[in-house]
Amino acid sequence: MTITAPAGFRAAGVPAGLKSTGAKDLALVVNDGPRFDSASVFTSNRCKANPVLWSQEVVKDGTVRAVVLNSGGANCYTGAEGFQTTHAVAERVAERVGIGAVDVVVCSTGLIGLANPRENLLAGVDAAHAALAADGGEQAAEAIMTTDSVHKQVVVEGAGWSVGGMAKGAGMLAPQLATMLVVLTTDAVVDAADLDVALRAATRVSFDRLDSDGCMSTNDTVTVLASGASGITPTLEDFTAALTQACTDLAMQLLKDAEGADHEIAITVLNAANEDDAVEVGRSVARSNLFKAAVFGKDPNWGRVLASIGTTDAAFDPADLDVAMNGVWVCRASTPAEDPAGVDLEAREVSVTIDLKAGEDRATVWTNDLTHAYVHENSAYSS
Amino acid sequence: MTITAPAGFRAAGVPAGLKSTGAKDLALVVNDGPRFDSASVFTSNRCKANPVLWSQEVVKDGTVRAVVLNSGGANCYTGAEGFQTTHAVAERVAERVGIGAVDVVVCSTGLIGLANPRENLLAGVDAAHAALAADGGEQAAEAIMTTDSVHKQVVVEGAGWSVGGMAKGAGMLAPQLATMLVVLTTDAVVDAADLDVALRAATRVSFDRLDSDGCMSTNDTVTVLASGASGITPTLEDFTAALTQACTDLAMQLLKDAEGADHEIAITVLNAANEDDAVEVGRSVARSNLFKAAVFGKDPNWGRVLASIGTTDAAFDPADLDVAMNGVWVCRASTPAEDPAGVDLEAREVSVTIDLKAGEDRATVWTNDLTHAYVHENSAYSS
Repeated sequence: MTITAPAGFRAAGVPAGLKSTGAKDLALVVNDGPRFDSASVFTSNRCKANPVLWSQEVVKDGTVRAVVLNSGGANCYTGAEGFQTTHAVAERVAERVGIGAVDVVVCSTGLIGLANPRENLLAGVDAAHAALAADGGEQAAEAIMTTDSVHKQVVVEGAGWSVGGMAKGAGMLAPQLATMLVVLTTDAVVDAADLDVALRAATRVSFDRLDSDGCMSTNDTVTVLASGASGITPTLEDFTAALTQACTDLAMQLLKDAEGADHEIAITVLNAANEDDAVEVGRSVARSNLFKAAVFGKDPNWGRVLASIGTTDAAFDPADLDVAMNGVWVCRASTPAEDPAGVDLEAREVSVTIDLKAGEDRATVWTNDLTHAYVHENSAYSS
Repeated sequence: MTITAPAGFRAAGVPAGLKSTGAKDLALVVNDGPRFDSASVFTSNRCKANPVLWSQEVVKDGTVRAVVLNSGGANCYTGAEGFQTTHAVAERVAERVGIGAVDVVVCSTGLIGLANPRENLLAGVDAAHAALAADGGEQAAEAIMTTDSVHKQVVVEGAGWSVGGMAKGAGMLAPQLATMLVVLTTDAVVDAADLDVALRAATRVSFDRLDSDGCMSTNDTVTVLASGASGITPTLEDFTAALTQACTDLAMQLLKDAEGADHEIAITVLNAANEDDAVEVGRSVARSNLFKAAVFGKDPNWGRVLASIGTTDAAFDPADLDVAMNGVWVCRASTPAEDPAGVDLEAREVSVTIDLKAGEDRATVWTNDLTHAYVHENSAYSS
């Protein structure tokens, strides 16, 4: 059930003293090969954290042999000193594992604007290296948790190979913290170029469609490592399907664990002129504080859906939009239709369906409602 | 102190039975001339309410002789029947005042997706017409209130002429309701073309820089009427300055009355490559739920400011941004500087200053914090 389910990987999670609670806060994942192909995607935020600045360079040659991750501090907006900390951590991993630092991806998560204690991190790397185990995936998944209430893991089985994964965070930017971190592993034989194609296809319809609060992290990192230990080379299509399944499963785990949320909302846009239009419309609704607060209040306020759609550049006729909530078509042709009183918003899962009547493409964007707990948790985090 | 302060205008505000409380809910403003120049700006939302669809046509020839406004229902997403209601209201005003319906601007505010009761509106027009008075501006300002806790009015004196104004709402979209409505009057002699230039200049730096919750109304309307009754023709520069002062004053009144807000936040962006960059950066911070919740919690969380800046396309070096909160430079060159503990967020007024170091332009965007009360009010509105 973990990143160590595929053959060729060891992992560990240990307490390094970054979290005041003494909980695990440093994870190490090592690819023992025989292959070391990798691909990664990072936040598109221009203000990137030091670990992202480092790791973007590391991944360029398609080879990654280890990933080291810490919670308890994002190492973001910490200047040259912070970058040196990231570099020192990568060097220590390289030294212990017997590889080059240029093959070590570093990820950090926690509060931004605070320096991470370098000595704690280095000692943590030593402890994690000593604890590396072929069944250590769950320990690693625990060590990257911040305000996550549960650790998130997944395994998808292929024909003689598998994909494992772990994640922390909630959406584009976890309500309290700064980051979504995801490590995926596979023992399939997939070269770096194909991994890149598969990863971009998988994230495009999973993590990229998750928009918890419209904020964009400084630290988001998704890395996939392929050991080739199964000796089996799946088709790119089969591998992409498995990777997409793993990413979607983790994305739904992130959505369900968004701090403070009472509802998971799936916004599906039908009959768009193209997929970009569908995503833009879905995202505009996902970012409407008014609509999200209404869902929290169990109020099927479809007018706020139309008002959000109207802010986009997508192709549609403003006078001919249909909207359903939980299957009740409360709006047809931009006018009231079925009685909104028939929309039951008691359950956590809410579906919004929008028919643009402008083409044949579609997309689903996921978000959460806007709750008192969201405001509370985000108003009281760093103090 | 009202829209009837400039000569040549009469106004009234009466209860028409749209509000269940029996409060005033219909306002009428009549320009008695001798001139009837006007200019208007409307929401850029593509899903526009029926009164906006009507009024956009009315204002095209630069002549407006009356504005009728109702609270208690936005007449938005109500289809052809709703448009006919707007048309009927304009016709009734025209009949009573003795003008053409094509010179009557109609504005509505309230819940979207519900039809307005036409007979109430028509009887309300009759009552308002009977109540028209040269000192009726305050009655009109009261009649357009929805969840506004106070009515908003302004007068700016010129040399022998003046500008009056009234407004309702809070920001791009009032947290609970759907609309910002503004009527401005002047007895200066200003032709329609100059009015348009002045109004666009005034709204660009006032209402357009107000972003309470990032949502965009379906009903926003700002209309200026010029009676020429003073007989004085100010320079365009003087008139624009007075109109800008009036709009800015009303915008600040809207900001301070945003439902549920604990803080008014002014985000000033300095040394931008151009004004568009400055506005884009300011708006990105104004739309960060994470940052706005932090201000509610009196937490000077400047990392969330940088994370927002990083989502924009503005010109800047991500490693060289300065941020001050209430005058304390908590971030220099994208790293921690002065102690955030020195930032006192007890007062309602909060200033955020961002130095992009990319040019010489600047802009200020205003917003509110994200509070429990915002979530409460917007989760319980239509039910």
